[in-house]
Amino acid sequence: MIEKNFKVAIAGIGTVGCGVISILQNNAQHIQQQTGRKIEIVAISSRTKNRERNVDISVYQWIDNPVELANSDADLIVETIGGEDGIAYELCKKALENKKHVVTANKALLAKHGNMLAKLAEDNNVSLNFEASIAGGIPIVKALREGMAANKINRIYGILNGTCNYILTKMSDLGANYFDVLKEAQQLGYAEAEPTLDVGGFDAAHKLTLLAALAFNTPIDFSKTYVEGIQKITSDDIKNAKLFGFCIKLIGIAQCKNSIISQRVTPCMIPLSEPIAAIGGVMNTVIVEGDYVGRIILTGPGAGQNATASAVVADIADIARGIFIPFFGKQANDMATLSYASIEDRVGRYYISLEVEDKAGVLAQIATILSKQGISIESVMQKAHEEKPDSARLIIITHETLEKSLLKALDEINHSNVNKIEPHFVRILTVKK
Amino acid sequence: MIEKNFKVAIAGIGTVGCGVISILQNNAQHIQQQTGRKIEIVAISSRTKNRERNVDISVYQWIDNPVELANSDADLIVETIGGEDGIAYELCKKALENKKHVVTANKALLAKHGNMLAKLAEDNNVSLNFEASIAGGIPIVKALREGMAANKINRIYGILNGTCNYILTKMSDLGANYFDVLKEAQQLGYAEAEPTLDVGGFDAAHKLTLLAALAFNTPIDFSKTYVEGIQKITSDDIKNAKLFGFCIKLIGIAQCKNSIISQRVTPCMIPLSEPIAAIGGVMNTVIVEGDYVGRIILTGPGAGQNATASAVVADIADIARGIFIPFFGKQANDMATLSYASIEDRVGRYYISLEVEDKAGVLAQIATILSKQGISIESVMQKAHEEKPDSARLIIITHETLEKSLLKALDEINHSNVNKIEPHFVRILTVKK
Repeated sequence: MIEKNFKVAIAGIGTVGCGVISILQNNAQHIQQQTGRKIEIVAISSRTKNRERNVDISVYQWIDNPVELANSDADLIVETIGGEDGIAYELCKKALENKKHVVTANKALLAKHGNMLAKLAEDNNVSLNFEASIAGGIPIVKALREGMAANKINRIYGILNGTCNYILTKMSDLGANYFDVLKEAQQLGYAEAEPTLDVGGFDAAHKLTLLAALAFNTPIDFSKTYVEGIQKITSDDIKNAKLFGFCIKLIGIAQCKNSIISQRVTPCMIPLSEPIAAIGGVMNTVIVEGDYVGRIILTGPGAGQNATASAVVADIADIARGIFIPFFGKQANDMATLSYASIEDRVGRYYISLEVEDKAGVLAQIATILSKQGISIESVMQKAHEEKPDSARLIIITHETLEKSLLKALDEINHSNVNKIEPHFVRILTVKK
Repeated sequence: MIEKNFKVAIAGIGTVGCGVISILQNNAQHIQQQTGRKIEIVAISSRTKNRERNVDISVYQWIDNPVELANSDADLIVETIGGEDGIAYELCKKALENKKHVVTANKALLAKHGNMLAKLAEDNNVSLNFEASIAGGIPIVKALREGMAANKINRIYGILNGTCNYILTKMSDLGANYFDVLKEAQQLGYAEAEPTLDVGGFDAAHKLTLLAALAFNTPIDFSKTYVEGIQKITSDDIKNAKLFGFCIKLIGIAQCKNSIISQRVTPCMIPLSEPIAAIGGVMNTVIVEGDYVGRIILTGPGAGQNATASAVVADIADIARGIFIPFFGKQANDMATLSYASIEDRVGRYYISLEVEDKAGVLAQIATILSKQGISIESVMQKAHEEKPDSARLIIITHETLEKSLLKALDEINHSNVNKIEPHFVRILTVKK
């Protein structure tokens, strides 16, 4: 039986789009042997036609308006334009309405419009695949929706933004401060000129929101994701973390306990003995905790032309060989409606950094304030301030406590007569035994 | 549209079989929402009907002869009997002939009869799924066949046997010797009374042989896998490894270079900076290097009732929701016929441990013998023998060399007048930058 060609149109011929074309050109036979069909690029479209590209696009039909690809004879549209609205949204919507499969790497779009687009795909009996939108080349969507299908997921967390991980790794390796490393990362192309999407935690939060929806079978709700970036992490925090046996990473965590979901992206202290602590540079890693399988860890390149394109082409291959999985792994009408915890409901350990007057009785005073909120101290380190002779730095690691209690205690410390600057804290990752 | 029940029969109601029943009972609704069908256990069979089990099997139809399940009205047969021949083989063969899907956790069976069974499944348009047979709960078959479908695989390697990894981790942590740790592992149930299948490397070799066939699209050929166990690794080797910045693990490696495959299971020294070095205890990890995605690392529980059953049920769910992937990812008639390298063709670094006379000129003599074979020394450490006053221990790390040359040099050293006991070496894992 000879199957007819599987027709693909690609919107966005930038980094990822060129990577997809490169794979479809160079590994054509390999992919055809797996899918049983030739993957044929029938049309392409992008903002700029004539610019330097590392693949030959002259052999493909060029369409000026990307949205028009939805009216082509393609079976599947690849969307790598980017942006949470605009052309990317219009194209995906129209393509699904026209009963064309869509493969996208666009987490911002899905974090905003994913529920509606998923329903649209389902109503039109086509696939909306998005492996490339989370953790680049790591097949995490496939692992969650299919490989761990037997399991209810308790928690999913990981390093979801390579830029932040690169910056924090460099700060740790070199003892350098945030702004110097950010500048270097921008020069190397690892960070954007306007870096907020990455360093503010928003890119990781888009991905984490999608992971949470997949893991717990709930609608995508970005507004429920608490987001804190890495901008306030100092080289001192990183040095102190090492002294206590931790490193600092930007972690996205979603967990579901007693039908209450918490989803957040924040800097976290991680015990150096944990495998995730060893993931440096621009690598991503995702840890999934299932009720039967236990802990599965997936690590790989979280970005880059070839790795991201690898995930896009895997999605195309799946559809070409007839694998259809609903967006959330289950039909949209089977979704759970659970409630969400506030960040203040978090229970865990904390690192606290204080600058206080260097005089007798201060530690006792601080300990008393913490104790009033039921917070007990696991470790404490006091040292003279390097620059201010009458100040001391106080680093405290707490036992497990409610974040709300911690905030009350820190507020009282902040308004006490011994405190010098606003107290600063970092959450410590809770590791399951 | 209401799909009819998907009927499953289970052969082998031991550890894994009970795990499968437990998941299908406890997560029934969750799985049905994903597959769109109720998974119904229509019959079970095992050697012993009445024994203590952690699930209630009284509700299922009991069949005395497992092979008879192939004649039941099940759509799919789960085989967890084990053994490379006998009942497991008979059942799988007959089930596929009767156009029933088969899900198995049996690597020994597949390493021996996989080619024939894969062809049989294909000819009968049914699936033969085997996720649980490699690295327990880790979805490595899915990652390879689907998640990395865009890539040609250059190399796949990892820790594939939890028993060996447990023993080597304990030897390293406690400075204990092989036999003491093996005995403890046997008492704890981590090693069999007859441990050769595990410690001799054969279990890992079964899995590695399957991975190589999947990665390089070649027939399964266990006879081409070079196998060396961990029995000769001493606590001294492990101590010396640490001094040079390595740990020792049993590693299965398959690579394909210029259409020549090498596949082997041997103890390897691994730089402590590599993520795989941190995988201790009974965990498994698999690293796949693809031409586009780069390096993907999957880590998780390699054995155990729940983790293995999780993989079996994921295979069942895939088939129930209509995902059909040929055994090798491609049709059997698309398979490549490549040639195999001998272990002596290996090029890499080596750790050599010698016991020599403690007198002037010995190091020069050894270095000359190595040099004659074109082997250059990267590091060397000489120390007095703890027990024999006239002997010295010589530890050498070589630069990259051909194994054949190393063997010639070691043979000459062994027959030289300064050598005391047979030289001993360990391969050093080649890490891609």
